[in-house]
Formats: sequence, C-alpha cells, structure tokens
Amino acid sequence: MMDHPVNPAKSVVAVVMGSKSDHEVMTESARVLADFKVPYEIRVISAHRTPDRAHDFAVNAEDRGIQVIIAAAGKAAHLAGVLSSLTTLPVFGVPMTTSDLGGLDSLLSTVQMPAGIPVGTFAIGKAGAKNAALLAVAVLALSDTRLREELKGFRKKMRDQVAADDADITQAGIQEMF
Amino acid sequence: MMDHPVNPAKSVVAVVMGSKSDHEVMTESARVLADFKVPYEIRVISAHRTPDRAHDFAVNAEDRGIQVIIAAAGKAAHLAGVLSSLTTLPVFGVPMTTSDLGGLDSLLSTVQMPAGIPVGTFAIGKAGAKNAALLAVAVLALSDTRLREELKGFRKKMRDQVAADDADITQAGIQEMF
Amino acid sequence: MMDHPVNPAKSVVAVVMGSKSDHEVMTESARVLADFKVPYEIRVISAHRTPDRAHDFAVNAEDRGIQVIIAAAGKAAHLAGVLSSLTTLPVFGVPMTTSDLGGLDSLLSTVQMPAGIPVGTFAIGKAGAKNAALLAVAVLALSDTRLREELKGFRKKMRDQVAADDADITQAGIQEMF
Amino acid sequence: MMDHPVNPAKSVVAVVMGSKSDHEVMTESARVLADFKVPYEIRVISAHRTPDRAHDFAVNAEDRGIQVIIAAAGKAAHLAGVLSSLTTLPVFGVPMTTSDLGGLDSLLSTVQMPAGIPVGTFAIGKAGAKNAALLAVAVLALSDTRLREELKGFRKKMRDQVAADDADITQAGIQEMF
Amino acid sequence: MMDHPVNPAKSVVAVVMGSKSDHEVMTESARVLADFKVPYEIRVISAHRTPDRAHDFAVNAEDRGIQVIIAAAGKAAHLAGVLSSLTTLPVFGVPMTTSDLGGLDSLLSTVQMPAGIPVGTFAIGKAGAKNAALLAVAVLALSDTRLREELKGFRKKMRDQVAADDADITQAGIQEMF
Amino acid sequence: MMDHPVNPAKSVVAVVMGSKSDHEVMTESARVLADFKVPYEIRVISAHRTPDRAHDFAVNAEDRGIQVIIAAAGKAAHLAGVLSSLTTLPVFGVPMTTSDLGGLDSLLSTVQMPAGIPVGTFAIGKAGAKNAALLAVAVLALSDTRLREELKGFRKKMRDQVAADDADITQAGIQEMF
Amino acid sequence: MMDHPVNPAKSVVAVVMGSKSDHEVMTESARVLADFKVPYEIRVISAHRTPDRAHDFAVNAEDRGIQVIIAAAGKAAHLAGVLSSLTTLPVFGVPMTTSDLGGLDSLLSTVQMPAGIPVGTFAIGKAGAKNAALLAVAVLALSDTRLREELKGFRKKMRDQVAADDADITQAGIQEMF
Amino acid sequence: MMDHPVNPAKSVVAVVMGSKSDHEVMTESARVLADFKVPYEIRVISAHRTPDRAHDFAVNAEDRGIQVIIAAAGKAAHLAGVLSSLTTLPVFGVPMTTSDLGGLDSLLSTVQMPAGIPVGTFAIGKAGAKNAALLAVAVLALSDTRLREELKGFRKKMRDQVAADDADITQAGIQEMF
Repeated sequence: MMDHPVNPAKSVVAVVMGSKSDHEVMTESARVLADFKVPYEIRVISAHRTPDRAHDFAVNAEDRGIQVIIAAAGKAAHLAGVLSSLTTLPVFGVPMTTSDLGGLDSLLSTVQMPAGIPVGTFAIGKAGAKNAALLAVAVLALSDTRLREELKGFRKKMRDQVAADDADITQAGIQEMF
Repeated sequence: MMDHPVNPAKSVVAVVMGSKSDHEVMTESARVLADFKVPYEIRVISAHRTPDRAHDFAVNAEDRGIQVIIAAAGKAAHLAGVLSSLTTLPVFGVPMTTSDLGGLDSLLSTVQMPAGIPVGTFAIGKAGAKNAALLAVAVLALSDTRLREELKGFRKKMRDQVAADDADITQAGIQEMF
Repeated sequence: MMDHPVNPAKSVVAVVMGSKSDHEVMTESARVLADFKVPYEIRVISAHRTPDRAHDFAVNAEDRGIQVIIAAAGKAAHLAGVLSSLTTLPVFGVPMTTSDLGGLDSLLSTVQMPAGIPVGTFAIGKAGAKNAALLAVAVLALSDTRLREELKGFRKKMRDQVAADDADITQAGIQEMF
Repeated sequence: MMDHPVNPAKSVVAVVMGSKSDHEVMTESARVLADFKVPYEIRVISAHRTPDRAHDFAVNAEDRGIQVIIAAAGKAAHLAGVLSSLTTLPVFGVPMTTSDLGGLDSLLSTVQMPAGIPVGTFAIGKAGAKNAALLAVAVLALSDTRLREELKGFRKKMRDQVAADDADITQAGIQEMF
Repeated sequence: MMDHPVNPAKSVVAVVMGSKSDHEVMTESARVLADFKVPYEIRVISAHRTPDRAHDFAVNAEDRGIQVIIAAAGKAAHLAGVLSSLTTLPVFGVPMTTSDLGGLDSLLSTVQMPAGIPVGTFAIGKAGAKNAALLAVAVLALSDTRLREELKGFRKKMRDQVAADDADITQAGIQEMF
Repeated sequence: MMDHPVNPAKSVVAVVMGSKSDHEVMTESARVLADFKVPYEIRVISAHRTPDRAHDFAVNAEDRGIQVIIAAAGKAAHLAGVLSSLTTLPVFGVPMTTSDLGGLDSLLSTVQMPAGIPVGTFAIGKAGAKNAALLAVAVLALSDTRLREELKGFRKKMRDQVAADDADITQAGIQEMF
Repeated sequence: MMDHPVNPAKSVVAVVMGSKSDHEVMTESARVLADFKVPYEIRVISAHRTPDRAHDFAVNAEDRGIQVIIAAAGKAAHLAGVLSSLTTLPVFGVPMTTSDLGGLDSLLSTVQMPAGIPVGTFAIGKAGAKNAALLAVAVLALSDTRLREELKGFRKKMRDQVAADDADITQAGIQEMF
Repeated sequence: MMDHPVNPAKSVVAVVMGSKSDHEVMTESARVLADFKVPYEIRVISAHRTPDRAHDFAVNAEDRGIQVIIAAAGKAAHLAGVLSSLTTLPVFGVPMTTSDLGGLDSLLSTVQMPAGIPVGTFAIGKAGAKNAALLAVAVLALSDTRLREELKGFRKKMRDQVAADDADITQAGIQEMF
C-alpha cells in the first residue's frame, strides 16, 4: 500500500493542527512521514473555530483512506478528542507548548480523555510531533514490510548517531584532561 | 419572561453534564435556578461519546429559548468548549473534581480556551456549580427586575449568615477563655 | 440599546485592570468591544492599592448603566472577586500572565471563588482578555438583535480565516512534497 | 486474523504491567480486548526489577506475533519507554495513579518521551487502561473488518447509554420541580 | 501591655476566618495566643460575602488596639489581602486546605500579593495557623519582656519533646534489633 | 527609636540573602527601609555554605538590637527557616525566582514550615522583597508614631499613583475611540 | 567492617527523622539495613526545633564512625540539607508525604539544593525510605565483599518475585478467558 | 586508589548523559571530578536510543572499576533508572532542564523510582550536576584520606567566598546609605 509515490489525494496519514501557528512544530511530523514515504496531508482545522469542518473531516476520513490521524492543538486542546469522538480510526494527539503554562494545559486537555474515546498522546512540542508520526509509521508497518524494515533502519541510524556523539564527547573529555 | 412557573418545555437555562456521575455536583446549579424560579433543564450530553447529540443540542439551543448554557465535565473536559463552538449563547463551564489530579485537568481543559470561543469558567466542583448558576441568574437579571431584587436578597441572606456565624464563633471563643 | 454611538459616559461594559501594566493585554478586550460598537470604559482600579475606589466603582456600576464588568489582575488576583462581592452584575475575570508562575497564581486566585460570589473566568492573558469581551457581547446580545447577528458574523469570519489557513498550509505541504 | 478463538499462545496484544498491584486497573484493558475477542496476554514485567526479562519480552514480541504492546507503570514509570526502545511495534503507555502525586509523576515519565522512541500515552488509571485497549483495537481494525464493525457498535452502545442517562436525569429533574 | 488578663474587649490580636468551617483549624492560632496569655478575638468575616463588614473591621482595628491580624481563608483566599489593603497593621495569612487542589489555590491567592500591600503568609492548614500566632507573639514580644521569655520557654519545651522522642525511637530501635 | 539617622552599627532590620546573586532583588527591601529611614544592614549569609555564620548571626541578632530579620533564598530555600530556628525574633522569608521551576521550589521551601518555627513568607521575587520590608516597617510602627504616619503616607502615594494611571488609561481609551 | 554483629554503639548508617511521626515510614530504611546486617542507629532530630542537636549530631558523625546519613523530613524539609551543610559525609534525603501537597513540598525542599552542598534524594514516602537504605548499602558495598554479594542476592530475589507474580497473573488471565 | 594521575582507562566515576545536548550542563560534574583528581569518563549513552549500549555499559561498569555512576537525562528521564536496574553500583541522577515544563518532568522521572532500584537524585540542571559529583567524591572519600581532606578544603573555600561576598554587599550597602 505504501509503494505508490507521495500523493495527497491518497493520504494515509492526516496531520491536522488547530492553528496555523502550530505549523512549524508539526513540520516534524510531516518530515518523518515524508522520510518514510508515507502519503500524508497536512491541514488546519480548528475544533473550536470550525467545528463543522472538523466534523466533516473526521466522519469522512476513513472512507477517504486515512488510516491514522495526528492532531495538534494548544491550551484547552480539544482537537484530538473531538476528532476521535467522530471516528474509530486511531487518533494521536500532540500537545503544543503554551507561553503561560508551558504546555501542561495542552497536555492534560489531550491525554486525560475519559474512558471510551481514546487519544494516544505524545510529548509536548516537537518531540511529540516527531514521535506521533513515528508511531503512525509503526502502525502502518504492521501490514507493510517496507516500513518495518525502514523503522529498523531508522533506529539503527539513531544508534549510530549516539555512538558518534559518545566518541566525540569522550574524546573531548580526554583532551580536556591532558 | 421569568414570571411563568417552572416549565422544562420553556427552559431558559440548560444545565448539561458530560456524565451521569456529575449529577450530584450539578444539583448545586439546579437548586440555585429552582430557588430563583428560573426555568431550566438538566441534561446528560457527552461531547466525546455523543458528539452529534451535543451538536444538535447546541445549534438548537438559541431557537428553543435557552439563554445561558452551563456545562460540566471532568478530566479532558471539552463539553463547554464544544458547545460554545456551536452557539453564540453564553456558555459557562464547571470543572469536575477528578480523583487523580484533583480537577486541575478539568479546570485547565475548560478555562484555557483559545481566543474566539469563550467559556466563562468557575471553581472546581460544587462551589463552581453554584456560582455558574448564580452568574446565569445575574445575566438574566439584566432584563428582569424580579431576579435583580432576588439576587440582592440572596446576598443579604449570605451576609446575615456570616454575621450569625461570627456571633457564634466569637461567643464560643469567649466561653473557652473563661 | 446598542444602537447609539460609542460614548464613554454611557458605558455598558467596564474593563477594569489592577495595574497600568495590564493595559496592553486588556486592549484585546477593548478592541472586541469597539469592533462590536459596545460602549465601554477602560479603567485602572486596584483592589489592593485603592480598595475604596474599587468599592465606589462596584457599588455604583449598576446605577451608571454598566451591565458587565471585566476585571483583570495578576498574582494574588483579587480584583474580580472584590468587585463581584460588591455588585450583583455579571463579573468576568481575566488572569494576567506572571513572570514566576506563568499565571497559575492569577488563574487560581480568580477562578477558585467560594460559593456565593461568582466570577466567570477566562484563559490567562490575551486569549482570556478577548474571550471575556466576547462573552460580554454574548450576554448583551441576549437582548440586542444587532449584536446577535454580528456575533454570528464574527464566527463566520473566524471560520473563513481557518479555511484560508488550511488552504495555505495544504498548498505549502504539497509544494514541499514535489 | 482476529477470527480464531482467544488463545494466549497467539497473543496479538500484550498487556504488560510493572507490578502485580497494577492488576486491578489493567483488568480494564483485558476486558476490552476480551470483549472484542482480540487474543491477548497479560504479564507482570518490571523494567527496573527485571530488566533482562523486559529486554527478552520486547525483542521477541514481534516474532511471536504481538502487534501492539500496552504497558502500565507508576511513579518513575519507565516500562513503556523501555519496551519501545527495544521494539518497533506500537507501544501504548498507561500511567498508574500514585498515592503522593496523584499520578502526575507516572504521566510525565510516560508521555514526555524524547524524539525517536514513541509511546502513545493515555489517561492516568482506569480510563487510560480502557482507552489504550480501545486504541489497540482501532489499530488492529485497520486490517480487520470485524473489529471495525464492532468498534462502531461499541460507540453506538455508548451513545445509547448516554441517551438513557439523559432521559433518567431529565426525568428526575422534572420530578424534582413538581 | 500583655499583663492584664484575657479580655476580648481589649484584643491585641484578631484571628479572622472567612468561613465558620475554618474554625477547627484556626483553633490552633487561638490556643497559642491563649497559652501566651495574649488577649485575642476570634471572628468570622468573609471578604466575599461580607465585604462591608471586612471593611469596617479593618479600618477600625488599629483604633481598637489590635496590633496583629491573622486572616484565614481557602480557595481564592482574598481575606488577608483585603484586610491588609485597608489597614497598615501587620496582617498574617493562613491558607486553608482545599479538597480539590490541596490548598495550593489558597496558598497562591494569599502569598502572591503584588508589591505595596504585604501579607506574611504561613503554611497551609494547622501548621500555618499555629505559626501565624507564634509570629504574632514574636511581634508583640519586641516590646514585652514576659512574652520574650515565654517564647524562649516554648522553644525549650519543643526541644525537650524532640529529645524525649529521640530517646523513645532510639530505644525502640535497639529493642527491635535484639 | 527610629529617630536617629541611618547607622548600620545600630541595625533594626537585617536583610540577609543566601547568595550574592540575590542582591538585585533584595535591593527592593533595602530601598523601602531606606525610604522609611529604618536602620538596616544587608548581608550575604548562606544556610548551606556557611551554617556556623548563620548560627552566629541568628543567636546574636536579638542582643545586637535587630528586631526583624528578612531572609531571601532560592531553590531548596532553607535560610529563613534556619534563622528562625535559632532566634525568636520575627523572621520574614522572600523566595527567589528560579530558572527551572519559577520559584515554586523556593516558595514551598520557605512557606511550608512545620508547626513551631514560624516564617512569614512573601511573594516570589521583587514584590515579595518589597512587601517583606513593608511588613517589617509595619511591625516597627507598632511602637513608633513616625513610621505609622509614614506608612499611611505611603499608602496614599500608591492610591494617588493608581488614580493618575486610571486617568491616563481612561483618557487614552477615549482618544482611541474617537 | 560489616562483619561484626549489629551494635548501635558502632553505627555505620544513621537514619534521622525530623519528627516522631515519620517513624513508620522510616522503618522501611531500618528494615533494609537490618536485613543487610549493617549497624545503624535511628534518631529523631529536628533541624527546626533542635538546631543545636542537629549541629552536634552532624559535626560528630564522621568521628563516631558514621559513613552514610539518611535524613527524612516533611513540608519545608530542611533536615537533610542542614545536616549536609555540617558534614562532608554522604547525606541522603527522603521526602515525607504531606497531607496538603502530597509531598511535592518535601521533595522540592530536599532535592533542589544549591550547588556546593549535595543531598542525594529519593522518592516521596516508603519507596524512598527503602531506596535510600539500599543506596547506603551500595555505598558501603564498595569496600565490603559480603554486602556486594548480598545486594546481588537481593536483586535476584526481586527478579524471582516478579517472575512468580508474572506466572500468577498470566495464569489468572488464562483462566478468565476460558 | 585516587593517587594515580587522571587516566580514562581507569575511570572511577562515569558521567553518562542521554544526549550530546546535555554536555554543557554535565561539564559541571566533570569539573568537580577533575578538581578533586578523581579519574572519570564522560559518555553519551541513551537509554532510549541505545538500550543495548546502556545495558553493556551498566553490566560491565563494576568489573571495569567504576565505583559511582552519574546519569543525566531530560524529559521522561529514564537513564539513571535503567542503569541502576542493571548494576548494584551507586547511581546518581541529574534531571535536565526542559523547555516546556522546566525540568519537573525530568525530576519526577528520575526521583520517583519504585522501591528496590535506588537512584540518588539531585537538583535540576547545573546545581544538580555539580552536587552529584560532590556526593560521588564524598562516597569515594569514605576510603580515601586525601579526598576527605580536600572536601573539607572545598567547604572552607565556599565559606570564604560567602564571607567575601558578605563583606562586599555590606560595604556596598553602607556606601549607598551615606
């Protein structure tokens, strides 16, 4: 399924943000999906300002072939919960950093969903944006051998990077000592 | 407008809760409205489990004659925000106490609404339930002389109660001393 | 009632701040009221430094024709509560951001009012300032057809803006991909 | 794939808890999986006390046919993160309530994963345990028509329950009034 | 000044609480003052429900011979701040425990006073009630030799108690070992 | 007692800070004391790094004529508590802002003193530094007519400043409108 | 050094608590030390109520042969920091649970020590009490082969217990299924 | 044992960080160890990205002669706990500052370890990095006379610095006054 080229008309993952100002952060999600060649779309839909749009998006997502929805919002961050209430597709939430409470408000509004309507929630900000996309890839990889292999390759690349960083720091430490 | 007897078919205030388990707390709102003889209805509508019901309720509320909506929910408490996104009526939110975080999650999910969709928020739990109803009465009182007078009477009763408590405690203190 | 031109001598909403340093934030409230052509006044009155002034303001507000009071304060933010204790008019509180605790202190001091004296509270900072004014307009709109229509227009404008943002971001996403 | 009877030798979902004392809460996950007839296993594996066991479990899970791992832990809750670091399968974390900090420690330890190793996190306690299982079902449903239908049925049952609760409360409210 | 017998008509310290329900906690203050034979009065005055009473109490306190005011309140705890705004006497605040947020709301509402109107704040609950009274005694002791000596005696009694506890626990420990 | 000129050899208030880096904040205390012509000394004494110095300072303060101690510290802020444990003089604590937790750590370490050893605590940072000094003045004013008058004058100046700010803002508001 | 029988006159670890009420929790430390046959003493010494006793204990601990100090305290928990400021021995802190803030106050007061005076801090309550003693054993084990072996045995026992729990829960799960 | 020159092949303390970006902070640990001439190594090992490397490091540390491990990590900071689960050596944790939650997430993830696997935790950021190294030195000093003397010298230097700061500030204060 993942073998066709990137094509927004055939999005498999939807990255939805509640405000245009979340775009920079959510580029982290987009970049992961692009790297893994997962067709995705990136949208601005506000649960609060455009509830009907959110409704239409969510109820039609499955029929359009979307398999995972990543929803990012800040403050009283209802977007992920609202979308999950309208679809049975997996919905992942990314809480945005907020200037006053650091994102604790976004986090609690996203993660503390009452029983029945699940939202898998990730870390506040860019780390969360990246990880939500990685978990979307992991979900798709359950039925896609290529993605499974690429995920393992991604892990290996991270390991190699840490090993290189380790060598750098250790070397620097030795030089400082002598 | 407030002079007719209580009649749910003509509700002026709607008290909506996200779960039946919020009923005991929201009785505080109901009691205030009943005391002030404000026609009200009390409903269980979940933003998450019954999004379409929430939608229908909100978009029809104004036409049905509802003037103020009080919405109570806990944890990732989206009910008030969802309703406010669908109506321009005044929406007041009451965060429910939660067993794990004491209601801080409900509070932040209700009060930290992004600009554009307002929710007037009250204290966690029973104090908030009572005060949301009192502010609903205050709003209605802007065009209802009877309610204005009764609100002033309610304040006087509170003052008298504090004065009586003061006399009790002072007297008890003197007795303890001698 | 709202049809006469803006005229501070006939303020319908009072925007009160505890310190001159809150002015920039509270301009958000003022701008909303001006946009909706709601006569308002903007004041600096400190619950702590000018308690008698706060008293006089509150007890006279109703007779002067004020219908809604918006009160902004920071840290141990008592202004909204103090005003509400002295009038039965609807009082809305806006907690100011604080440099040390991000406004959590202002928020809890404003929202956690004990039963009997209500303060409808909004988000910390500018979003709260804007939303308090929007809810004031919603209250006034209960008896003002023009405001009701304009509120619906305001919502539509927000929807259109989100739709435009959505188109921008989606387009940008497609361009990035190819 | 989901059509064979429940058979722990062929677990598709693994529910892992860090301590036997988490069992009551995690029964919520087990019940959902049983209701949806998803083969699952339920395990006690501690990231801290049995790190090698955790390692062996995680590195072998994919080969054993596990598709989703649900990991529950409390306090400095590392279990979900540790498992996710050792497998590319989707890992969902459920933070346990704690007696001192209410589960805020478990929540932050689970959700704030650094970029690269994703954990989809759910609400503290029973709601989270239930929702993690529901999201596991949603993931499996991407390639299982039966589960897709049953998820829709589950949502309908919830809707009906809320409608029934609404009728009860409304009726009770009317009776109180008269 | 402290040598005359306890006589509420000549209170030197006023213990004021915002609600009768704070009485049990504030008995800790009263007991300290009684033990040190400091004339005191104990009052119920609510900043919110009886603002005029609070006003009259505060503006007359100095003329009535009050030297220190101890004010206890919970939630959005404004009492101490309101009294301090109306008198230049030393005002000490005691935040009450709250069921939802544990008293963090009361603490921040009391301690985070803006510059200009001071409130010396103590620990949440009984420890704070006791310590506020002890600091009131320390203030009075600046011009009262008897109180200075008695404070030193009070410290000695505490030291002796800890020494006795130490002996108990050490002895118990030794017995357990053998 | 306050009538002699400022003379550090005869300090009546000691402003003690745990680290030289607290100096800028504590200048707020010093300025208030200087404005009220209260002889004071300003010291760097660390409870942690110079415990014996802290001990000597505290046990000798009373004999040296110190009447009030203001102690400022950050993070695990023990200074005020340590000094209070060694003297029966009134000790006021000022929690310093901290870069990681905003001063919540300093605040709780200062205010949550167990029963028996009181510390009157003020707001985090500059507001607290100023208010601690104002309360020290209020304490001294109990036996000093000049200070009593000057405190009333200080309050008046603040009132006048707020009135002037109010006029400015109101005027600015009117100009914006037309 | 660890081979002689338990003998309080030759304590190697001192378990110090700020209040007799901490005894039940700190029994967790005592039990670990007794199990590992590490000579220890258990003491009640309050940094606040008995500062001189705390001073004498700390400055003499090294000469008496104490090698590790475990200090437990609650609220503004200064005990560990005060002891560490007076000795260069390793000091471990255990924050006590508190009824109002759950022990967050004790935790921050213990762990947020400024640079220069270290306190190794453990979890709030019993888990921390147990772990502080285990780390004390680990420190002693650096020069004691018996303790090194016993620590490894302790880890093995924990592993076996988790394995047994795992078997129980898995078995229970299978039985539930069929 | 400490008398040989610095030689990374014979590290006695290992300073491990979860990410290269923690290097600047952990230089505080390195500097202390270098000042005390304690052989140390400084490493980048991620519990999440390089779990096998973390495993190998931890299980071999004791045989390589490491006596204390200092582990620094941020957000869901599992590194110290993971290492402690794999060795019985003393493990000290340093929580990194985080941009969203200020390091509260790192702190709770490090300090709230469940019973059985101890991590001695230090303050968030640089103060913690320095203190972890100082406590490592204190542990090593138990069997190293030179280190014991040097620790006492380090304390003296700190005392002298505070005394010098005190003189500076006092002098500055006097100059300001006249």
